[in-house]
Amino acid sequence: MNQQVLLAKRPIGLPEADTWQIVETPIPQPQEGEVLIENAYISLDPAMRGWINDARSYVPPVKIGAVMRAASVGKVIESKHPHYKVGTHLYGTGGVQKYVVTNGKGWHPVDPNLAPLPLYLGTLGMTGFTAYFGLLDVGEPKEGETVLISGAAGAVGSITGQIAKIKGCRVVGIAGGPEKCRYIVEELGFDAAIDYKNESVKAGIKTHCPNGIDVYFDNVGGEILDLALAKINMSARVVLCGAISQYNSTSGISGPSNYLSLLVNRARMEGFIVFDYAKDYSKAAQEMAQWIMAGKLKSKEHIEEGLSNFHSTFLKLFSGEKLGKLVLKC
Amino acid sequence: MNQQVLLAKRPIGLPEADTWQIVETPIPQPQEGEVLIENAYISLDPAMRGWINDARSYVPPVKIGAVMRAASVGKVIESKHPHYKVGTHLYGTGGVQKYVVTNGKGWHPVDPNLAPLPLYLGTLGMTGFTAYFGLLDVGEPKEGETVLISGAAGAVGSITGQIAKIKGCRVVGIAGGPEKCRYIVEELGFDAAIDYKNESVKAGIKTHCPNGIDVYFDNVGGEILDLALAKINMSARVVLCGAISQYNSTSGISGPSNYLSLLVNRARMEGFIVFDYAKDYSKAAQEMAQWIMAGKLKSKEHIEEGLSNFHSTFLKLFSGEKLGKLVLKC
Repeated sequence: MNQQVLLAKRPIGLPEADTWQIVETPIPQPQEGEVLIENAYISLDPAMRGWINDARSYVPPVKIGAVMRAASVGKVIESKHPHYKVGTHLYGTGGVQKYVVTNGKGWHPVDPNLAPLPLYLGTLGMTGFTAYFGLLDVGEPKEGETVLISGAAGAVGSITGQIAKIKGCRVVGIAGGPEKCRYIVEELGFDAAIDYKNESVKAGIKTHCPNGIDVYFDNVGGEILDLALAKINMSARVVLCGAISQYNSTSGISGPSNYLSLLVNRARMEGFIVFDYAKDYSKAAQEMAQWIMAGKLKSKEHIEEGLSNFHSTFLKLFSGEKLGKLVLKC
Repeated sequence: MNQQVLLAKRPIGLPEADTWQIVETPIPQPQEGEVLIENAYISLDPAMRGWINDARSYVPPVKIGAVMRAASVGKVIESKHPHYKVGTHLYGTGGVQKYVVTNGKGWHPVDPNLAPLPLYLGTLGMTGFTAYFGLLDVGEPKEGETVLISGAAGAVGSITGQIAKIKGCRVVGIAGGPEKCRYIVEELGFDAAIDYKNESVKAGIKTHCPNGIDVYFDNVGGEILDLALAKINMSARVVLCGAISQYNSTSGISGPSNYLSLLVNRARMEGFIVFDYAKDYSKAAQEMAQWIMAGKLKSKEHIEEGLSNFHSTFLKLFSGEKLGKLVLKC
């Protein structure tokens, strides 16, 4: 039988367990031109919280009763497809389910001998691409500039900071708790960390960004965005990658009251969606694979197991309990 | 005697009359290399409200007891300067006063035979340059795109809209009251106007921007910025020119809660300061002078008279009582 996690209702605030319904259904059969994939790992991303709101966005909302949308990596176990043979590993939007049938559109082959499968959901997948294009294309960091990153121990933030180091920047990360702060400085090579749970972010920015902020890569929104805006330099770039502090808000989104700092500093705040860079994914993956092999780019995956644990795993995106890329093993 | 308007104290909220002190002082005498200028017209600009706050900005705050900072245009009536002879008309930061002595640095000659003097404070001065560079360099409008402008009957907004029309855009202005709305559509050629005092701006944007907003040129901030953000297109540009609705706020600046629309639409919000374009002012002035002569660029000046009326005139920047460029005749 197939095991599927369906969206049962639209949550208000932090999703509760009854947001999802786990069902068993017959394993789907591939038709001519299709493959049956057995998902090995499911990617968990903060963006998923946005996908279940009934709001205009860059992708349509997941429908009530539909399989929860997610990226996944899996293996072809039955094929009526001209190119993808049984045994091929593919990456795509497989959803939170054990088995998925697809005609292969939007799926890409990955090689489990070159890298462990979860890495194709992290550094060598959408997460890595988000860091790579968000920082390099939108943030445009120059050597010697100061790059501040929130959510710095998270999947995207941790890669973003390392790429900024590779590009010769001073890199300061904001993360929650001493373990995450130690990790990004000692293991990943950030120049400094600010522990937002145990110290003043305002004072931390003042101390660790003595020359101001040239690029602020924002994963969190809220008060931290405002504190960063207060210290941006002339012609600074604020990269809007996410706003995890706001996704479960029941009182509406809090806008950055310091936004006029963009005006007086001739600075810009700009959003991006990684999907727009699809044509350059392979170039980015190659470059990042080289950095990984050269020991310049490290990553951690936090792997939980079992589709029945989807809800509790999903909550770890927001509770701060995990470090690095969150993945669910099927 | 010289008549000067000094900053007497830092206002909280909308400045009251005792924010300023009017004094009579001896007419200053030019030294070697200097000129004595008799100001003819003083420019009144919303940015002046920011200059009297004690806050880090793109120019230092006006000091308590100092002459209030303002752009002005006047005539040299005494000269010990190698180039600027008596009778030369100059434009510069002359302050709110009748007479000013300067070594000429930051002053530029203007020709009263080519255009009336107030125009050098408006369309052919900083106001026009603000519209020109803010729209063209930051907003980057393309033919056929929709440009939405707030404060559209104001000094900057009215020029911005006409330049956007010259560039082949659909131009929609937001202004307060039927007279201003009639003016920007019937006299200036905007495609449509939204009267924020008498109709729903949200509904107006929906009606008049049926293809969404590609460039939003913001002079006002606050709720209207949020309503515009909700309707921006993919890759839209939000130009931060000002935030007049917020300048006198006593409860802090209201940040745009819809800022994540920048993220999902891969859009940017960017500030600018016209001073950065100083090297290109003359090119802009030439092009705008040609548009004026071709009848494509019109402007209105609202002229009040007498330095003793500075305070009541200043308040007209915020009360919505004026149309076009506000100028005080000395």
